[in-house]
Amino acid sequence: MNKEALIQMDLDNIWHPCSQMKDYETFDPIIIKKGKGVYLEDIDGNRYIDAVSSWWVNLFGHCHKRIGDVLAQQANTLEHTIFVNFTHEPAIALSERILKVAPQGLEKIFFGDNGSSAVEIALKLSFQYHQQAGRTQKKKFMALTDAYHGETLAALAVSGCELYNAVYKPILMDVERVQGPDCYRCQWGLQRETCKGECIAHVEEIMASHHEEITAIIIEPLIQCAAGMKMYSPIYLKKLRGLCHQYDIHMIADEIAVGFGRTGEMFACDHAGITPDFMCVSKGLTAGYMPLSLVLMTNKIYEGFYDDYTTLKAFLHSHSYSGNPLGCAIAVETLKIFEEEQVIEKNRETAAYMKEKAIKMLQHIPQVGDIRFMGMVGAIELVKDRNTKEPFDWKQRVGYEIYRIAVSKGVLLRPLGNIIYFMPPYVIAKFEIDYMIQVAKESIELYFRRNKP
Amino acid sequence: MNKEALIQMDLDNIWHPCSQMKDYETFDPIIIKKGKGVYLEDIDGNRYIDAVSSWWVNLFGHCHKRIGDVLAQQANTLEHTIFVNFTHEPAIALSERILKVAPQGLEKIFFGDNGSSAVEIALKLSFQYHQQAGRTQKKKFMALTDAYHGETLAALAVSGCELYNAVYKPILMDVERVQGPDCYRCQWGLQRETCKGECIAHVEEIMASHHEEITAIIIEPLIQCAAGMKMYSPIYLKKLRGLCHQYDIHMIADEIAVGFGRTGEMFACDHAGITPDFMCVSKGLTAGYMPLSLVLMTNKIYEGFYDDYTTLKAFLHSHSYSGNPLGCAIAVETLKIFEEEQVIEKNRETAAYMKEKAIKMLQHIPQVGDIRFMGMVGAIELVKDRNTKEPFDWKQRVGYEIYRIAVSKGVLLRPLGNIIYFMPPYVIAKFEIDYMIQVAKESIELYFRRNKP
Ligand SMILES: Cc1ncc(COP(=O)(O)O)c(C=O)c1O
Ligand SMILES: Cc1ncc(COP(=O)(O)O)c(C=O)c1O
Repeated sequence: MNKEALIQMDLDNIWHPCSQMKDYETFDPIIIKKGKGVYLEDIDGNRYIDAVSSWWVNLFGHCHKRIGDVLAQQANTLEHTIFVNFTHEPAIALSERILKVAPQGLEKIFFGDNGSSAVEIALKLSFQYHQQAGRTQKKKFMALTDAYHGETLAALAVSGCELYNAVYKPILMDVERVQGPDCYRCQWGLQRETCKGECIAHVEEIMASHHEEITAIIIEPLIQCAAGMKMYSPIYLKKLRGLCHQYDIHMIADEIAVGFGRTGEMFACDHAGITPDFMCVSKGLTAGYMPLSLVLMTNKIYEGFYDDYTTLKAFLHSHSYSGNPLGCAIAVETLKIFEEEQVIEKNRETAAYMKEKAIKMLQHIPQVGDIRFMGMVGAIELVKDRNTKEPFDWKQRVGYEIYRIAVSKGVLLRPLGNIIYFMPPYVIAKFEIDYMIQVAKESIELYFRRNKP
Repeated sequence: MNKEALIQMDLDNIWHPCSQMKDYETFDPIIIKKGKGVYLEDIDGNRYIDAVSSWWVNLFGHCHKRIGDVLAQQANTLEHTIFVNFTHEPAIALSERILKVAPQGLEKIFFGDNGSSAVEIALKLSFQYHQQAGRTQKKKFMALTDAYHGETLAALAVSGCELYNAVYKPILMDVERVQGPDCYRCQWGLQRETCKGECIAHVEEIMASHHEEITAIIIEPLIQCAAGMKMYSPIYLKKLRGLCHQYDIHMIADEIAVGFGRTGEMFACDHAGITPDFMCVSKGLTAGYMPLSLVLMTNKIYEGFYDDYTTLKAFLHSHSYSGNPLGCAIAVETLKIFEEEQVIEKNRETAAYMKEKAIKMLQHIPQVGDIRFMGMVGAIELVKDRNTKEPFDWKQRVGYEIYRIAVSKGVLLRPLGNIIYFMPPYVIAKFEIDYMIQVAKESIELYFRRNKP
């Protein structure tokens, strides 16, 4: 099939995610033919550095031999089995491995298929737990401004990005929204590296007055990714853990984007040395191969549901593909690679290089307001005015236009509003980092040459 | 690793879906080692006929060579790519094939990861569509009693099984619940095969008075599976389609369990010759290999979101693994198998044999109240009294106990309350059907010998 015919079929049939399809009138879908390492290659042979790890999922590069082999073998042994009363070694091996590397005190796992369902599972568990413990007043979840926890309606309700959920307000559950950290525009005028998480005060205030109604607080530890890679201090997490204990509110750590080494530790919670009541993981869990998610929790939660069947205290959640052996086998291999190849340690050098290079090459651009890095995540916030930090009008679509330029130059960046970010597979080489940042630089500069601010 | 150690790890670490974990104290998890055809084989070499297709997902048997090969090849070519502005041939091929076999008039597809997310996508689309068309009063979904649409909170809200959602009531959105068909206990005393779908009157009444507030009705066409394989007439669907047109209410057909040939046609809607506004598919879409789902819809819906970006009319839903190439490649192969191997035609004979055999072998058991079949689905409803149709007390767990006996005899049946059902992979042979039904018979009889009703 030729390229034009394929593009036409795509546009005729497919509604792409997170897209205004009218945008495709001037931007043909790019047909990716194969992947290898950090590269995606299209049908014409053009290669793109996958600087966003295909929405933050890929860890070790595309078409990784070890993982492909394990997948093929599992598909020929046991592709799937019902997971109630039945089990299999990939699930058991995964449970052993993940509980070993997870924050201490997380002792049970429940399976979901994607990030959103993991979030929904955690919310349901927290709610039901309190209900069964007689705390029936606890009917509300608490979440931060600018949070992103997924797209199913309850995950969307706890999300705080207006862009995604405004239209659904009439059918979203009511959530206790609290001002989250905002280090680039800190209310206290402090620095992320040296502050004491002063902005936890917002949470404290609401918890003090409303704790009896609040079931859980859900947060993205250390980086609010979808909000534009907004980073904050581990001290904030530590203080939050304390408040949750004090007020008998569950802490749900949504590590879907930041887990598996992204921030420089295995899990973002590790920076703060804390154990949440629930931890949701997905994305990198399968190294970017296929949907699978887990909710990890304490034995205390588990015991709140453990009783005779007729008490009806069971957690009756399920998905058709719960505990899918293909996903589990891939996840086991992923954790083996972490261990055997000292991934976290190696990332440190890569991350330091990427940060240094980005600062050096981008800080002189007048529209670059903030350059922030944490582990294998870097973000460039573009502003109209460096001093006032005034953002560009969203209608100008600065990030989107720069992304289009960068793609034409062979780097798959993605915008988050006016923020351009780097979140490449961990295996990216130095010369590839150079190229990625060079293209970001050229694309930003070209855009602003064409569109004088 | 030996069996005892594996079981211990499983019980220490894993919270199984849809389970009261205390039940596992007297029923060790069975460790499945491999799958082949209709069989699952455990670590001791015991084989089980997978009479429920591992929760209704498997179509062509476990570890199917064609599918395994395609999966391995795709994993070595392109395991995944971001799906916004980027695309790939497996997704395009899948879109072509599925739109060709779907009810005419469904022309666009949107990707999800599992059944629940497909349902959430359809609900969100329907709601946003009406909002953007100025029908802002439409804020409520309508759904049938005993419905099952998944476990994420909005899917659960439209579900009508009290067992699954009662505890969450305080956080579920309000739904317009309407009495659905109940052919075994028909209020009108009619027969499913000859009725005129008289019970649509319940829907008509509510639509007539509340249509201005109702966004969509979601239904499981022809079989409410989780409710206990409750089957009803295609005439009901036809009339429902008419009412939805009349009252400007979207019809969402949840074909997640019944799609892909289960009922004897490719889709259950085909029996009625209707086109819903939205159709959700998952489960069999990947022949039982891995999570993937689709929402199919009309161009009219699509056009309601097609506009300049700044109008903010886009549907910004996404999942990290949207359009995953592995799942798409498997789904394409699945649809090829349907076409090349005349699956639907061949199923007819298998289905007829299974029905005949079940009636012959089970109808004499005093506790068998109803034997109902449709395509490759059969259900046996056990009752205390055949004349009054009085059900057994749920606390007796009749179905669960019979299931445990059947498993010990090498047949993986699953109970739905007091209903035992057959939903095997399509490749089941006649002698395997014989064995499956023989074991069901023995298990039911043994249970009632031990527990005199
Ligand atoms: C922090 C966070 N939570 C939840 C999700 C939702 O996961 P999924 O897209 O797999 O449903 C995402 C996805 O981007 C995420 O970044
Ligand atoms: C009719 C129907 N809808 C939705 C679902 C939910 O799908 P999933 O379990 O993949 O989330 C199911 C699953 O059993 C189903 O039978």
